Amino acid sequence: MAAPALALDIGGTKLAAGVVTPTGEVLGESREPTDPASSPERVLEALFELSESAIQQSGAGWRELGAVGVSFGGPVDFPAGRTVRCHHLPGWEGVPLRNLAAERAGLPAVMDNDANAAALGETAFGAARGCEHVLYLTVSTGIGGGLVLGNRIYRGANSAAGEIGHTLVAPGGPECTCGRCGCLEAVASGPGIARAALAALEAGEASTLARIPREALTARHVAEAAKSDSLATRIMDRVGEYLGLGIAAAVNLMNPEMVVIGGGVSEAGDVLLEPVRRAVRRGAVPESVRDLRIAAGELRDRGGLLGAAALALREGIQRTGRT
Amino acid sequence: MAAPALALDIGGTKLAAGVVTPTGEVLGESREPTDPASSPERVLEALFELSESAIQQSGAGWRELGAVGVSFGGPVDFPAGRTVRCHHLPGWEGVPLRNLAAERAGLPAVMDNDANAAALGETAFGAARGCEHVLYLTVSTGIGGGLVLGNRIYRGANSAAGEIGHTLVAPGGPECTCGRCGCLEAVASGPGIARAALAALEAGEASTLARIPREALTARHVAEAAKSDSLATRIMDRVGEYLGLGIAAAVNLMNPEMVVIGGGVSEAGDVLLEPVRRAVRRGAVPESVRDLRIAAGELRDRGGLLGAAALALREGIQRTGRT
Repeated sequence: MAAPALALDIGGTKLAAGVVTPTGEVLGESREPTDPASSPERVLEALFELSESAIQQSGAGWRELGAVGVSFGGPVDFPAGRTVRCHHLPGWEGVPLRNLAAERAGLPAVMDNDANAAALGETAFGAARGCEHVLYLTVSTGIGGGLVLGNRIYRGANSAAGEIGHTLVAPGGPECTCGRCGCLEAVASGPGIARAALAALEAGEASTLARIPREALTARHVAEAAKSDSLATRIMDRVGEYLGLGIAAAVNLMNPEMVVIGGGVSEAGDVLLEPVRRAVRRGAVPESVRDLRIAAGELRDRGGLLGAAALALREGIQRTGRT
Repeated sequence: MAAPALALDIGGTKLAAGVVTPTGEVLGESREPTDPASSPERVLEALFELSESAIQQSGAGWRELGAVGVSFGGPVDFPAGRTVRCHHLPGWEGVPLRNLAAERAGLPAVMDNDANAAALGETAFGAARGCEHVLYLTVSTGIGGGLVLGNRIYRGANSAAGEIGHTLVAPGGPECTCGRCGCLEAVASGPGIARAALAALEAGEASTLARIPREALTARHVAEAAKSDSLATRIMDRVGEYLGLGIAAAVNLMNPEMVVIGGGVSEAGDVLLEPVRRAVRRGAVPESVRDLRIAAGELRDRGGLLGAAALALREGIQRTGRT
């Protein structure tokens, strides 16, 4: 049996460290909120304090760990082991995070972006257990994606594969964070959902959402109201259709066994998933839809941590085995 | 040096057999037009007559061949080695073509659909030589696709990967052969291009295309007129934009090094490729576009044959090596 891994998660809301067994059991875990002003040095310092605590809880020692995996909240240059930038924190341009983690932990290290890590985590320990080909989407502040093909993360030519969030699904639609208009992220991310609700309320549509102060209105309110409120239902239906349109194109291309939708917005459950499933059935070719499953992620706020562990346990160990 | 392969191509316009070396040199080749009434038995019979002739030309003997590769013009069940149906010929439901070819040739056999074969052929011997991750599209009567990822054909869960032709790019657009509306194939295939030209002429638009009898008008006329005729230019620009929209979504997801466009319509050259390149640059994320090349296929009407050879020389040999 392989050794447990040290898993490190650098996310927008929290930093976390954990000790995870090859079957996905979390033997120890420690986390703290992300300080948005933290430098990379300070973040690494904090992560290794959290690691000490997680290892202590686990009853294991540093020497019993086989590898360290890092899930990073931003694009990375995978072959170089460097971050490109962080979605949440300053100063992360070109940081050699893989080597820094390896040196600090005294262990072989593997590092990838959070969407790839979560895709592998859901495949190893979550909703897509047992699947070989998986499309993972995270739908929260933004929309990212990760592909597990043949049980391994597929990264493409520049470590940039999986960018399903910037597929055009709403021509002439609202402006996206990327500067273009009508991207999936612009209309189906948390902020996109809140924006659609605000626009409808401004236009005078009747809804129980009108009771919520406009500046406090979030996608969560819309998802929660969707069981009983007709405006909220319509918005979530349309969001599901947009997601389904982007997913159908990806399913036609990739023919995965399973699509896993994670991230905060996925917690809406069937209010979101049912319109997604309908749109994918309508938009994808019969051969690819026949056996396809579409489900919410199971790892929730442990996606980054268990993804980091899966990196260390699957990709890390494979790398070590080869060299 | 590995042995040359026997390559068999079952296409809509021709049947072909060839003897191909591991570097892609065609030592012998023989072809005949496809008889659309032929049964599978008759097609196999014809292919092996063509094989005898190709082998004779090549100066090699059956014993010097290492494997047989088959490119088939329709969907296949790859793990089972069976055809699903043929786009051009009757009676091909569930034919165990891989085993039939293996028995007949007395060689290990590998069989795949023509788009996957051509994708591997362009990667081994054509426009994408030296690339690891390639998206291939064939644009002719229909639009199909094939993915070469990590130097191997990626087939997905049900051998159905690569179906880029049925991605929705023109909401509310013309009806597709698949029964839905606005698919890439409906607006950017040869018949889709001819239909757009006919509709514009019917609407009274001025064009040199009006000189061609309506029933004889094809995509080739439109592509040829596009250098000098403003209607034809507009149509090819729009076709390129639709293709670019579908390709951009695929590039965001797959981050390939190269996109190769084959099939009859690709012979239009820059009249088609330039609007495609513009649309992909506009629609795909910067990381994936930075080093991306988009070019026409180089294998032209030998795509199926050299694809079949690549299957035998790369996938076949790998399969033999493993078992």
